[in-house]
Amino acid sequence: MSNSLGTLFKITSFGESHGPSIGVVIDGCPSGMDIDFDFIKSELIRRRPGQSKITTARNETEAFEIISGVFEGKSTGAPITIIIANSDTRSKDYSHITNVYRPSHADYTYQEKYGHRDHRGGGRSSARITAGWVAAGAIAKMFLKHTNIHVQAFVSQAGTVKLETPYTKLDLSKTETNIVRCPDAVVADQMIELISKTKKQGDTIGGVITGVVSNMTVGLGEPVFNKLNAAIGHAMLSINAVKGVEFGSGFEGAIMKGSEHNDAFVAGEKITTKTNHSGGIQGGISNGEDIVFRVAFKPVATIMNEQETVDEYGNTTTVKGKGRHDPCVVPRAVPIVESMTAIVLADFVLRARTTKFEA
Amino acid sequence: MSNSLGTLFKITSFGESHGPSIGVVIDGCPSGMDIDFDFIKSELIRRRPGQSKITTARNETEAFEIISGVFEGKSTGAPITIIIANSDTRSKDYSHITNVYRPSHADYTYQEKYGHRDHRGGGRSSARITAGWVAAGAIAKMFLKHTNIHVQAFVSQAGTVKLETPYTKLDLSKTETNIVRCPDAVVADQMIELISKTKKQGDTIGGVITGVVSNMTVGLGEPVFNKLNAAIGHAMLSINAVKGVEFGSGFEGAIMKGSEHNDAFVAGEKITTKTNHSGGIQGGISNGEDIVFRVAFKPVATIMNEQETVDEYGNTTTVKGKGRHDPCVVPRAVPIVESMTAIVLADFVLRARTTKFEA
Amino acid sequence: MSNSLGTLFKITSFGESHGPSIGVVIDGCPSGMDIDFDFIKSELIRRRPGQSKITTARNETEAFEIISGVFEGKSTGAPITIIIANSDTRSKDYSHITNVYRPSHADYTYQEKYGHRDHRGGGRSSARITAGWVAAGAIAKMFLKHTNIHVQAFVSQAGTVKLETPYTKLDLSKTETNIVRCPDAVVADQMIELISKTKKQGDTIGGVITGVVSNMTVGLGEPVFNKLNAAIGHAMLSINAVKGVEFGSGFEGAIMKGSEHNDAFVAGEKITTKTNHSGGIQGGISNGEDIVFRVAFKPVATIMNEQETVDEYGNTTTVKGKGRHDPCVVPRAVPIVESMTAIVLADFVLRARTTKFEA
Amino acid sequence: MSNSLGTLFKITSFGESHGPSIGVVIDGCPSGMDIDFDFIKSELIRRRPGQSKITTARNETEAFEIISGVFEGKSTGAPITIIIANSDTRSKDYSHITNVYRPSHADYTYQEKYGHRDHRGGGRSSARITAGWVAAGAIAKMFLKHTNIHVQAFVSQAGTVKLETPYTKLDLSKTETNIVRCPDAVVADQMIELISKTKKQGDTIGGVITGVVSNMTVGLGEPVFNKLNAAIGHAMLSINAVKGVEFGSGFEGAIMKGSEHNDAFVAGEKITTKTNHSGGIQGGISNGEDIVFRVAFKPVATIMNEQETVDEYGNTTTVKGKGRHDPCVVPRAVPIVESMTAIVLADFVLRARTTKFEA
Repeated sequence: MSNSLGTLFKITSFGESHGPSIGVVIDGCPSGMDIDFDFIKSELIRRRPGQSKITTARNETEAFEIISGVFEGKSTGAPITIIIANSDTRSKDYSHITNVYRPSHADYTYQEKYGHRDHRGGGRSSARITAGWVAAGAIAKMFLKHTNIHVQAFVSQAGTVKLETPYTKLDLSKTETNIVRCPDAVVADQMIELISKTKKQGDTIGGVITGVVSNMTVGLGEPVFNKLNAAIGHAMLSINAVKGVEFGSGFEGAIMKGSEHNDAFVAGEKITTKTNHSGGIQGGISNGEDIVFRVAFKPVATIMNEQETVDEYGNTTTVKGKGRHDPCVVPRAVPIVESMTAIVLADFVLRARTTKFEA
Repeated sequence: MSNSLGTLFKITSFGESHGPSIGVVIDGCPSGMDIDFDFIKSELIRRRPGQSKITTARNETEAFEIISGVFEGKSTGAPITIIIANSDTRSKDYSHITNVYRPSHADYTYQEKYGHRDHRGGGRSSARITAGWVAAGAIAKMFLKHTNIHVQAFVSQAGTVKLETPYTKLDLSKTETNIVRCPDAVVADQMIELISKTKKQGDTIGGVITGVVSNMTVGLGEPVFNKLNAAIGHAMLSINAVKGVEFGSGFEGAIMKGSEHNDAFVAGEKITTKTNHSGGIQGGISNGEDIVFRVAFKPVATIMNEQETVDEYGNTTTVKGKGRHDPCVVPRAVPIVESMTAIVLADFVLRARTTKFEA
Repeated sequence: MSNSLGTLFKITSFGESHGPSIGVVIDGCPSGMDIDFDFIKSELIRRRPGQSKITTARNETEAFEIISGVFEGKSTGAPITIIIANSDTRSKDYSHITNVYRPSHADYTYQEKYGHRDHRGGGRSSARITAGWVAAGAIAKMFLKHTNIHVQAFVSQAGTVKLETPYTKLDLSKTETNIVRCPDAVVADQMIELISKTKKQGDTIGGVITGVVSNMTVGLGEPVFNKLNAAIGHAMLSINAVKGVEFGSGFEGAIMKGSEHNDAFVAGEKITTKTNHSGGIQGGISNGEDIVFRVAFKPVATIMNEQETVDEYGNTTTVKGKGRHDPCVVPRAVPIVESMTAIVLADFVLRARTTKFEA
Repeated sequence: MSNSLGTLFKITSFGESHGPSIGVVIDGCPSGMDIDFDFIKSELIRRRPGQSKITTARNETEAFEIISGVFEGKSTGAPITIIIANSDTRSKDYSHITNVYRPSHADYTYQEKYGHRDHRGGGRSSARITAGWVAAGAIAKMFLKHTNIHVQAFVSQAGTVKLETPYTKLDLSKTETNIVRCPDAVVADQMIELISKTKKQGDTIGGVITGVVSNMTVGLGEPVFNKLNAAIGHAMLSINAVKGVEFGSGFEGAIMKGSEHNDAFVAGEKITTKTNHSGGIQGGISNGEDIVFRVAFKPVATIMNEQETVDEYGNTTTVKGKGRHDPCVVPRAVPIVESMTAIVLADFVLRARTTKFEA
């Protein structure tokens, strides 16, 4: 397994859905930084199950403890370890799938790869472990705060309901005012309605999250194999259920002409661009414009209807979802997208301190 | 900079567009493997400039030399270093942009990040360096050959011309029969016509490449931060001009229901799935189905028409492409996509040897 | 900070001397391996403070919990996290050194490097954290067991008392029969007497530990920058108070002639060598002979006599040890040396699975 | 294989003794640094074979070329690749050992590990490849120059001839005034005489090199697994023929008492220590005192007298050195020790830029 991410600001993730706790080690957080415990809490709350009628009913308080790396409220430079309890597990909800492969879950691939797996709640493949990522993301955001870099994500699509307004015309600060985390109240209501309806049908839907990083520093990114887009893309594709990621014009850019797509530079106090089809990254390095990207999530694999499948012994069988599950992951995935982005950026801000000779 | 990729099968890239040569070091290639020099040559030829009327006229013979790691035709386990000459550089074509930032190129970001850059032909940010990646990819393909894993890519979109037929209904072996590398001859002609027309206009277009990996081993991928999709995605987003990547259903999956999207398992000699919306990867691990992904390329930034821009001193100016450039990168990017995929897979095949206890 | 070690069998250490607990994450332990909880316990007991009259009186029961990566008694391939409680901390013993730099401790360097440090019990610089390394080492030893590789260490010098008998003439299984961990009972008694006497004087002494790895696999080691000796040496120099490491003939080899030093190969069922001045490693790769190395430990820096020093404000002051400390670390460092060696070897055994092509 | 070293200032080594050339890629050298080609040349000359009557007669001019990463005399931040030709190889001198294992060489271990090896001149296991390390070390020294950190090594022992004067009483600038690189002229003559005599006997001797780093920055080192001593130790143990390394008091420290060994802090403009038994490193971090270490080299394995050995087929046979070899490696290893030290320090200087929060 590869459970570490990053070079200088490096996180190591551990834990399973139904173990006693999950957690994260953050190695490389600079020393002397104020650690805001309430902020970590509030970020975990944004991701927590049971937060609204359109999420899973698993009820985690997300009680956490920092067991290393912080002294008298400040980081010491030592690894920061955060442990988050799994307090509301119902492992018996999973006893029927001990030996059955749920379609489009990781049961089969984990079994084949490892030969021995913790099936309870999906074990290591559960999105439960992203709580640790969000805790680490909270630390990363604290670090980024002093650079003014601001990371923000929102739901831009839930199933067939799509937010068409460009983000620059939206008030992103309204994202947290509704349970689906869409900054447009009207579209948010449509999304909530669709998710609620889907839930009643025992079915699920996918969606898209848009990420926007503003007040960007120019010069973040480490070509040629750690380009900023490659690193953010890597982090996004590490999130459960993500099937695609695009930057700036993305797949739409394929049909544009160079004369349309090119972002003309504009002189001024600082150099800017007229358009931002590049999504704030050129040659793998940030150019100071907003970093804009979209992340596609497939529909949740656990549905409440019966599906054909196969068990560990190769027999055909059926399976039906039990337990408590999200009908659509994107509302709760917003803080995950933000956290993973912040973790990557914190690493690159530190990397950028080492680029130039400066005799 | 971060110029290495991979954990066990690791490549280190070096060189600039107008330096004496570019190259690659491959560290971790298993020993005792026959090195097929002709195959390296043929792969380089697929990527080389000047190969057809729809590519740049820069005429590289791609003469290469293996200066380490191979003895009596076989790998020794020592790092394999391949040097490829830059023989047809015309640095004076770039003298007009010594201090000018070409729109949507990496001139501005490199200058801001490094303070000192080789502007000739884009220097380190040039796609010229992907010749080294293709040489490394050829080695990776030789290694994969013994596992039967087969990596194949083709152009599925050039500007507005899109190949709508699903890849399973195409004969992918026909990909190399035309200069645009689209396996459907009719669509290929349309693409070639569009690219030719665009070239005459002094403009450029983008496109999409589809990658398909068949005969996949079950169990490749290293959760949770080196999932197979994350690693391939990272590699794709490292390629010049790539703005997006999606696996299986990708962005389309967002509008599907779970009941539609789930890939039902089917019993048999080996377990398969009825559909493949997962794109061959579940929980970050290959499930034995074809790995399918799409890679979006933006239009080439160098156009032959005048554009507004800014110079290093902050003055507004204009710039116009000189020299020899591709009107559309996707035909030549096909071997690059394949190579980067093969490099990632070689790494994961080696990783997979270390997963289980096997007392 | 850099708190991870290893490539495939990788440990991440965290925790401070007086935090709630310390621990370790082991990423890359192969799946399906039986985890022997009693063995972990017994290894921790070998390292634990308060184990005898010649060690510190800090009384830790070394209660530990595995919070991830193990299911139904077997490893799952997921990261294994082990948490060990700090139950007998007396932070007030350190209040007098909040702002004072103890000579030859890490107080000054941590303060200068990080600006903010946990001074209690030495914080992150305390040898307390090696409990986590020993827990990880126990897992590594379980893994090595199936290869027959056997790691053993013993005290070969305590202050001026030196064990002169070559290890091949000793019964190493007697190492654990005395509290100083020297396999020769007579010399052990001399060592115990010297340590006891030194303790009464409020002073401390250093020592040397010899490591022997038997039943070695031929071919472990990754030249040229991860040679087996470099990796073991790195691990040894990571242990608190270690000032030197040597392999085979070591520093004595400098005065030998090539004709004396060379280890003649001997034909047989397997190839062996007549002598073992190489210490079982040639060209950075194991040759199947015993790996033999010696590790030098300086005397413990905390002494009970008054010493001149400087405080954080640059003022001259004095400091005197309080609290509970070891008069000599080597008896308790034996399991640490073994653990770090086993961790390195587990990594290299996995690496060796990826060396050859094996079509 | 693992042919890269370092995190931020990272080198990748490649090449074999009798290939067309050997070389190094330096990734992470900050941009905008003047590259002094003459200095690289002069460092290579210090290491080159054929430099005096007490070294091998292989006559390399060490012609090198920088093929990437430098533009208009300055580093660009792109990887710097340096290629050094192998111009004076005599592969036939090795034809008699194609299938014979030379005692205490790496022939047997390479053959067992890789199954296929380049035997000519030792192939990848040859010290020839350290020329690349010295070239990289020259770049590292250029970088360190602006920090004032000064790396210096000298021969302190050749066989039985030992320099007893402490380095603080020596004029280290005289090191290069004699061919053995010992700063004391009288002892140097004794060393030269011993080496010459040994050479005539067809035999070889070992030796010790002392490294001294002065004007050290306080705060370099990354606990707990990349302590400065562990990283330097790792680098030293990567050098061919090295069997041991010790810092400060080293193995002698084992017999000292804490009250003798502790380095009392002394107030002043900057904090210093009365003694330096710590060798300039406390808790894995530099304290500003000189870093002092000793590196033990075994005698050269190639001797001109007949030795018993075994061939690849397991038959007993004999072997005798042919070709051109050093009777003692330490004179030529001085620049190698310095280079590897400088490479490690450059990495840690960059790392140290990322330690603190600095809002």
